[in-house]
Amino acid sequence: MRQAYQTRLIDLGEHGGRMCRLASDAMRDATAALLNSDLALAESVIGLDLEIDEMRASAEDVALELLALQAPVASDLRVVVSALWIVADLQRMGALAIHVAKAARRRHPAPVLPEPVRPIFERMGTVAVDLADKAEKVLLNRDTELARTLEADDDQMDALHRELFAALLSPTWSHGVAPAVDLSLLGRFYERFADHSVAVARRVIFLVTGENVGGDTTPAGLEAPER
Amino acid sequence: MRQAYQTRLIDLGEHGGRMCRLASDAMRDATAALLNSDLALAESVIGLDLEIDEMRASAEDVALELLALQAPVASDLRVVVSALWIVADLQRMGALAIHVAKAARRRHPAPVLPEPVRPIFERMGTVAVDLADKAEKVLLNRDTELARTLEADDDQMDALHRELFAALLSPTWSHGVAPAVDLSLLGRFYERFADHSVAVARRVIFLVTGENVGGDTTPAGLEAPER
Repeated sequence: MRQAYQTRLIDLGEHGGRMCRLASDAMRDATAALLNSDLALAESVIGLDLEIDEMRASAEDVALELLALQAPVASDLRVVVSALWIVADLQRMGALAIHVAKAARRRHPAPVLPEPVRPIFERMGTVAVDLADKAEKVLLNRDTELARTLEADDDQMDALHRELFAALLSPTWSHGVAPAVDLSLLGRFYERFADHSVAVARRVIFLVTGENVGGDTTPAGLEAPER
Repeated sequence: MRQAYQTRLIDLGEHGGRMCRLASDAMRDATAALLNSDLALAESVIGLDLEIDEMRASAEDVALELLALQAPVASDLRVVVSALWIVADLQRMGALAIHVAKAARRRHPAPVLPEPVRPIFERMGTVAVDLADKAEKVLLNRDTELARTLEADDDQMDALHRELFAALLSPTWSHGVAPAVDLSLLGRFYERFADHSVAVARRVIFLVTGENVGGDTTPAGLEAPER
């Protein structure tokens, strides 16, 4: 029984790792679909919807069962509670990747991205996927040192977000209102994906140290770009 | 000891109710600040930042302590776990109200809302505050019947969101790109505020029935407006 319990705890951690991989792959593919107007790739990301929700639900069910039947304490309790938090962030990351893929599908075969903002979204995609990949490593290795570096990486996303707004509001913007609306929302999806990656890392810091540094919150003194 | 434990469980529920009231008031004030270009009111909402984060943190700490020291089971366990979920949604609702207030502050003394979209945001504000008020009632009375009505109310927000995009993309839109960017993001903030209210109601259904219907997820078959 004791061994089954330990196995389920370990499974819960690995489950988080797999969900994080799925979210990272989904954002990589959604970005490629956006950049290349690739409808099939967009559809494949959009089709992950149910799988992502089911992964969240099954992780929650395991966590709830462990709490109810095993009454874990100390570090075991933190594993279970942080899993409850983390799968919510990972589910949201998957949903945001799906939003990006839907933008690519909605405009197909027209490209979503006017030329001047293509490099910004290429880099947003790279930063988002890197953050999710780091969050996966943090999760699998319980690496609090790596966890603490994610906030700084998130600053890159904020800088790209500011660059995007500067492009949209520049007097040389010649693409009109409709693409600007699409791009504002797309920028927001990438920014939130990055925020949730940071939140996952923060919850691992709690898991390891017991220090509750919060999840999806902006630490006092730091600000999202003013838009 | 047993009584102290029951008292803390009840406190946790009431704490959620207070946070929900705070989020509802914040969104009401943020909307008024937006509609009336009221800088002082916007500042008062923005100033709630730390209080909201502290409320989340203290609720989490109580929930973690109850799990660790009391190993609650059955419905008590569900009270504690749902509190962990619910305060995350409520914290996010507060953050979204602050985003709205910041938009009002950023443009002050200029109005953020061009005339044609004012009525849309008036109604978005009303629907958002109604949803949060219902979520508060659901929380305080553990009212699962009321909880199940929130999804339908959320449809009103989705309809308003579609109306907003129709206005922005209409050939008669004469306000240019910059306000369209602001308004796209503002619309998103209201929509997400509504989603989180629904998530709170869903978590109360879990609390009462043990049925895990998910939190901040789009149920299969339902879709956010395609933008």
